[in-house]
Amino acid sequence: MNQVKFLLDEEEMPRKWYNILPDLPSPLDPPLNPQTKEPLKPEDLAPIFPMELIKQEASSESWIPIPEEVQDIYRIWRPTPLYRARRLEKALGTPAKLYYNWEGVSPPGSHKPNTAVAQAYYNREEGVEKISTETGAGQWGSALAFGTMLFGLECEVFMVRVSYEQKPYRRILMETWGATCHPSPSELTEAGKAVLKEDPESPGSLGIAISEAVENAVHDDRTKYSLGSVLNHVLLHQTIQGLECKKQFEMAEDYPDQIFGCTGGGSNFAGLLLPFAGDKIKGKSDIDTQGHDVRELQITNCEPASCPTLTKGPYIYDHGDAAGYAPIVMMHSLGHRFIPPPIHAGGLRYHGDAPILCKLQEEGVTDALAFHQNETFEAAHVFARAEGFVVAPETAHAVKAWIDEALRCKETGEEKTLLMANSGHGHFDLAAYDAYHAGKLVDYEYPKELAEKAIAEAPHINR
Amino acid sequence: MNQVKFLLDEEEMPRKWYNILPDLPSPLDPPLNPQTKEPLKPEDLAPIFPMELIKQEASSESWIPIPEEVQDIYRIWRPTPLYRARRLEKALGTPAKLYYNWEGVSPPGSHKPNTAVAQAYYNREEGVEKISTETGAGQWGSALAFGTMLFGLECEVFMVRVSYEQKPYRRILMETWGATCHPSPSELTEAGKAVLKEDPESPGSLGIAISEAVENAVHDDRTKYSLGSVLNHVLLHQTIQGLECKKQFEMAEDYPDQIFGCTGGGSNFAGLLLPFAGDKIKGKSDIDTQGHDVRELQITNCEPASCPTLTKGPYIYDHGDAAGYAPIVMMHSLGHRFIPPPIHAGGLRYHGDAPILCKLQEEGVTDALAFHQNETFEAAHVFARAEGFVVAPETAHAVKAWIDEALRCKETGEEKTLLMANSGHGHFDLAAYDAYHAGKLVDYEYPKELAEKAIAEAPHINR
Repeated sequence: MNQVKFLLDEEEMPRKWYNILPDLPSPLDPPLNPQTKEPLKPEDLAPIFPMELIKQEASSESWIPIPEEVQDIYRIWRPTPLYRARRLEKALGTPAKLYYNWEGVSPPGSHKPNTAVAQAYYNREEGVEKISTETGAGQWGSALAFGTMLFGLECEVFMVRVSYEQKPYRRILMETWGATCHPSPSELTEAGKAVLKEDPESPGSLGIAISEAVENAVHDDRTKYSLGSVLNHVLLHQTIQGLECKKQFEMAEDYPDQIFGCTGGGSNFAGLLLPFAGDKIKGKSDIDTQGHDVRELQITNCEPASCPTLTKGPYIYDHGDAAGYAPIVMMHSLGHRFIPPPIHAGGLRYHGDAPILCKLQEEGVTDALAFHQNETFEAAHVFARAEGFVVAPETAHAVKAWIDEALRCKETGEEKTLLMANSGHGHFDLAAYDAYHAGKLVDYEYPKELAEKAIAEAPHINR
Repeated sequence: MNQVKFLLDEEEMPRKWYNILPDLPSPLDPPLNPQTKEPLKPEDLAPIFPMELIKQEASSESWIPIPEEVQDIYRIWRPTPLYRARRLEKALGTPAKLYYNWEGVSPPGSHKPNTAVAQAYYNREEGVEKISTETGAGQWGSALAFGTMLFGLECEVFMVRVSYEQKPYRRILMETWGATCHPSPSELTEAGKAVLKEDPESPGSLGIAISEAVENAVHDDRTKYSLGSVLNHVLLHQTIQGLECKKQFEMAEDYPDQIFGCTGGGSNFAGLLLPFAGDKIKGKSDIDTQGHDVRELQITNCEPASCPTLTKGPYIYDHGDAAGYAPIVMMHSLGHRFIPPPIHAGGLRYHGDAPILCKLQEEGVTDALAFHQNETFEAAHVFARAEGFVVAPETAHAVKAWIDEALRCKETGEEKTLLMANSGHGHFDLAAYDAYHAGKLVDYEYPKELAEKAIAEAPHINR
């Protein structure tokens, strides 16, 4: 029998997250307070995050225990399977061994609840009653609605108005799980009112929605704010993906030569890659790598050609959000005021990237490729026709690079082991597939001049 | 650790389907040729079905081997997990032990591919190049598109026009998997043309779509027809659900006292219940039932109050389809010309029921309950808030009965083990949840007079 899925038993699910901070080749540059431009102190973050998450953000412990209650909820959908894509290998005629993990089995349909559940837990532990957040197309908002519901917290989501109107299904999902969802800009915050005063028809933006969600948390003692990507603690919670995956590669008696993932804010790909990157940095693995040299492991970020943060953005100090409320961090950035073209992969439309991933890129631990959306949908279509699963537009970027490498191996005859981070399903993104089938998808050029202008407006602090 | 999921390893997946026909308390009445009204001969079905499926339809073998290639594809998503609904138990405060299986993990999101894949296989084995079928809301059409794609067959789906226009996502899913999808009535068949001539704006119906799909198969040597429910061979392929579930109950060291499932054509619930019904009929199980008396097992069909086939329909000979092309079978029926009210659970809007399930009902092996749609969505909402998964409107009927029984157990203190057939997710049905939240769902009365008229028009053959 040719095994298709490699899946840990529930009791084998990892009980600790992996914190890569102490293993990084060089330490992260300190995040800065956006007002003072001085290194951020824990108390600067206290109004918006619970203390335990602030601690995790800068922890020097390599392993952080996953609370029992969080483990209990993870077990609704975890461990998630590692797939050997045997049908795709055959369809491509490649000698490469293709693997993917599959986060689409979670109730919200993506990797996002791995951190949403943990964040909801720590907030409840510290007596927080409500969490406020922003969401674009709704992936993160629905994951946080799911997480807060399971811990009895209220959840208030500011959803970019144009998505709120065009994509009602994710909004309904949030409401079904008990969250309140507002189109942003709203009349509920000063930030929202200011925008509406200037433009009553404003379609909104992620930057505005962040401002509303943060303001909502700052001005209410019972409410904290939550972010679904970029931050160290978010990436930490996602490492359960890679930790499971490593154990499952041991079951498969294999180990990857190259890993591909889509990178927007970076939370999904970081979740898969960090435990493997730890192996690469340390030059050895805690599992039997079946003769693979972990120092040779290649790790490839896949991003949109129209928002090419890692491939075209300079490594600078910049704000995490458009409005400049968020800390200033060292990262690859296209400028915090850069507004990326409206590609369907909404989760990759971020001007920056997680500082940890940017550091790994700078240190040469990872590399990066950029793709236009038509070629990513073409790859996702090949994948769907071979493996059955219809993936999210974000994931399609990783599928593209993975298939390209499999086809290169076909030419050279290399039997490389290629792992792809399959972050979620595309059930709420089928209109994008329809546009692709109809030849109506636009491949947006990278708006270089706009980005250069935005990059010039970044604080560019030299420390 | 309180285990949440009970899941077989891939190599433990059943290799044979269970055929209940030889174990039925009394034999099925023969299906009749719709023209001659005489018992149907295998050759009557040969123009529309491959011979192996015709054989399975009347097989006296208790176990039918699952072909290796079908097993290979099943392993994309099977075995599916048996869940212990610990959070729901706690939320309800019931001493009952609540379990559900979960078919929503399949790429099409429901139990339907269990038979779609098998049917595609047998058609390909006999040289068929194309399969034609009908679909209402698109669950079955998308499952068959998935199955035919994996065996390299063409697939042509006639989709009821009103759904084609209102629910584009399932149509896009079919197209992504390579199927051709036509709104029905179409200009492609005589049946479709006749309807359009009379009413160019016809919204279509499942009856018309069946006629188009059958005509399409009959007039083309390279094409066969496929049905997604009702028939014995369809129910046979679905038994992998119950077979897995029984093994998983053995892992859980438990056995159900009562099983609940939604019944439209009956393919999903039959898939779960038949292996358990076999135990009940034989008075013993092939697994350790942990002291549960299998003869006491209660099996409860859950149907819509507005289309109450098992609870209100007489047990008569009637046509399987509206147009009268399909065989005449002995079943509970509201009349083949009965058009049920437009509830969201489109998969339960069928005038009849699978002959096997009707026989079990007549023999007292099963019972049945009927529910209005608001109470089913209320139950599905309670389920979603406790367990996370948002189920299909069809499944919500089973959830309702299951929760009702759990609450009854709370009153009596009974520690019953209650199993629910969780047939699929509601990702493409969120508009129905939205209507429920907004108080806009209509509870349709059973149109008794229309049904009585339709029942009077059934052939009512006495044999």
